Amino acid sequence: MAIDRRHPREIRADIRSGKITSVTAGLGEGHVQANLAVLPRDYAYDFLLFCQRNPRPCPLIEVTDVGSPEPTGVAPGADLRTDLPKYRIYKDGVLADEVTDASPYWRDDLVAFLLGCSFTFEWALLEAGIDLWHVKHGKNVAMWRTSTACRPAGVFHGPMVVSMRPIPSTQLSKAVTASARFPNAHGAPVHIGDPAAIGIKDVTKPEWGDAQPFRPGDVPVFWACGVTPQAVALASKPPFMLTHSPGHMFITDLPNATLAAF
Amino acid sequence: MAIDRRHPREIRADIRSGKITSVTAGLGEGHVQANLAVLPRDYAYDFLLFCQRNPRPCPLIEVTDVGSPEPTGVAPGADLRTDLPKYRIYKDGVLADEVTDASPYWRDDLVAFLLGCSFTFEWALLEAGIDLWHVKHGKNVAMWRTSTACRPAGVFHGPMVVSMRPIPSTQLSKAVTASARFPNAHGAPVHIGDPAAIGIKDVTKPEWGDAQPFRPGDVPVFWACGVTPQAVALASKPPFMLTHSPGHMFITDLPNATLAAF
Repeated sequence: MAIDRRHPREIRADIRSGKITSVTAGLGEGHVQANLAVLPRDYAYDFLLFCQRNPRPCPLIEVTDVGSPEPTGVAPGADLRTDLPKYRIYKDGVLADEVTDASPYWRDDLVAFLLGCSFTFEWALLEAGIDLWHVKHGKNVAMWRTSTACRPAGVFHGPMVVSMRPIPSTQLSKAVTASARFPNAHGAPVHIGDPAAIGIKDVTKPEWGDAQPFRPGDVPVFWACGVTPQAVALASKPPFMLTHSPGHMFITDLPNATLAAF
Repeated sequence: MAIDRRHPREIRADIRSGKITSVTAGLGEGHVQANLAVLPRDYAYDFLLFCQRNPRPCPLIEVTDVGSPEPTGVAPGADLRTDLPKYRIYKDGVLADEVTDASPYWRDDLVAFLLGCSFTFEWALLEAGIDLWHVKHGKNVAMWRTSTACRPAGVFHGPMVVSMRPIPSTQLSKAVTASARFPNAHGAPVHIGDPAAIGIKDVTKPEWGDAQPFRPGDVPVFWACGVTPQAVALASKPPFMLTHSPGHMFITDLPNATLAAF
């Protein structure tokens, strides 16, 4: 994975001009990356309330004013229509298009939601001396739907999705404290140990992403996952929804450490 | 101050039946008390977004479904129309009525917001061994409007209001860590020391509440205050708004400690 240490502003300019089209892992190292979900104003209240009621899977770091593509709170001057490498357009809950410039799809009634992502707490785990197999090997984490229902809000409801990382039992405590500092990036684990307790039948067979190998003494540790809000939003089949393409995140100006709650 | 150690459910029943009509300080000891703000659905999105953008002064702990007076997340079975000792009704931003039963004013389009209050972090400060003069003497804290603007959202905008407590310099660090654990009750101080730095001219003359005496070595410590959301909401003159009367809070089922972020 190539590391690009320039300021996010410069990286976003290269994305805007089409010079960078790749996934964003390793870009703007040390800065908060975010999931994007854009919905019409008619759906925005229910979605905002859903995030408020389910902060672990849906950690809101920014909501734009209606019609504005500028996330003034986390990246003043940025344009959410052009500054992500790739977008997906959904109509009535069905994937309708994948584009590198979302400008033609922008409308005056759209609200953009930016949600913290696992990159931030994974950075905290790595800093704390915890190895992450999928990072080292350039793979995806393993993800599952759980038997834990999110608290519904208006038209939005559905199960919580989690990601799983095998952690040595000697480092469990450190994994909790290191990630707990970042509630706006999913925070502490939602579950440690027995996968069946949250409705996961086979921890070697993820629903999404790659299976993770377990070393002797490794314990499965589950964090709330940013796939949740997108899955929940799409399940309600909004007439229009715009998101980032998987892995093609928005890079904010916030250093990861500024997201620390304590 | 009388301490009532019964479960909040029993205390709310006495409030509902009119047996308790007093301020709620000391009632349901150890449980989270909350500020109430009720607005029509038309104003709810902007208010929800305002709270999301200003979590220090506006720590949301519950938002009801449109038309429902039951705060299912924090006190299942409670009724926000009857379970607070006293309410204020505002029309076009002007106080129109003060009642002990808000049922006649309830409507199908209302959304109730419950916001964490200073009682929770003051409990944490007291537990940490920090004396609070106003608690000991049954007075109010001192409060001011600051020169710090809240981040606006839709029709809502205005300055942050803070409360001030004199803290011995030897206990400043403890005051920060003890209150920081409770972000849903205003969290860590927003400012320590020089009042002029946040636009306060005379720290001996509060805009609201009682002046607090300073002992030698005491430093003024400022926390974001729950007066902010009410002041901001009223400034926008919504056609209808329902709140608790000062000091007459809603007592939730949540033990204070469950609100701890870490």
